[in-house]
Amino acid sequence: MKRLYQKLFILGAVLCMSACEAKNDEEKIVEEIKEIEMEEVVQPDSLLRHVVMFKFKDSTSPEKIQEVVDAFAALPSKIEQIKGFEWGTNNSPEGLNDGLTHVFTLTFHSEEGRAIYLPHPDHKAFGAVLGDSIDKVVVVDYWTH
Amino acid sequence: MKRLYQKLFILGAVLCMSACEAKNDEEKIVEEIKEIEMEEVVQPDSLLRHVVMFKFKDSTSPEKIQEVVDAFAALPSKIEQIKGFEWGTNNSPEGLNDGLTHVFTLTFHSEEGRAIYLPHPDHKAFGAVLGDSIDKVVVVDYWTH
Repeated sequence: MKRLYQKLFILGAVLCMSACEAKNDEEKIVEEIKEIEMEEVVQPDSLLRHVVMFKFKDSTSPEKIQEVVDAFAALPSKIEQIKGFEWGTNNSPEGLNDGLTHVFTLTFHSEEGRAIYLPHPDHKAFGAVLGDSIDKVVVVDYWTH
Repeated sequence: MKRLYQKLFILGAVLCMSACEAKNDEEKIVEEIKEIEMEEVVQPDSLLRHVVMFKFKDSTSPEKIQEVVDAFAALPSKIEQIKGFEWGTNNSPEGLNDGLTHVFTLTFHSEEGRAIYLPHPDHKAFGAVLGDSIDKVVVVDYWTH
């Protein structure tokens, strides 16, 4: 009988260790959920969109256009105030694009963030990449409703 | 000594039950994480943005502008192909908005969705609300990168 209880004790101890491990896993998972929830909380109700549209000059080469796209797309990794970035080329069938072919939408969380971005050295350096490749640029910013 | 092992056995049994409970909690949490991930999976990798920008005529009244905004904002509840909608008024300090003051960004999940939207009776009815209130309209669509 004593040996049985000894065995049961060992079994109990093993189960206890397993329980501790499960608890640890659970804590890790709960931590991950909290992080996911935090990210959602950090996202404000309204976002400041900054929509930049280009019409390139007819003389601008495809290589130069690619260089501009790459340089623009590199800005979010350099300027932390840029909270979102997407871009694409116009494919509207409506023919109302006024010659604009390239769209870049940046997202800020505040007008202060935009105020840091606009004169930022890395943004200025991007302007230098643009050079005289652009025929027309239209920029509209808006707080999302 | 026997009583000690008995007590330890009972302790082990209690810990075992606690472990089972922890495992159940863990399973529930893992299930929740899977659900969160599933929601993300439903969102496609790339989205079709449809950006509509208006410059209203100087003669257009604020009431008419509000009517246009309300009619546009009502479209997502009428046309299921519209998967996202946001709008706002230009507040860019750069002065490059080319007179455009109102921005509406619709999101589609496919070009088929957009092809249903464009000639949709409710979209046509919105066009009738616009009437002759608009001085200029610019539309750019792009698949997000």
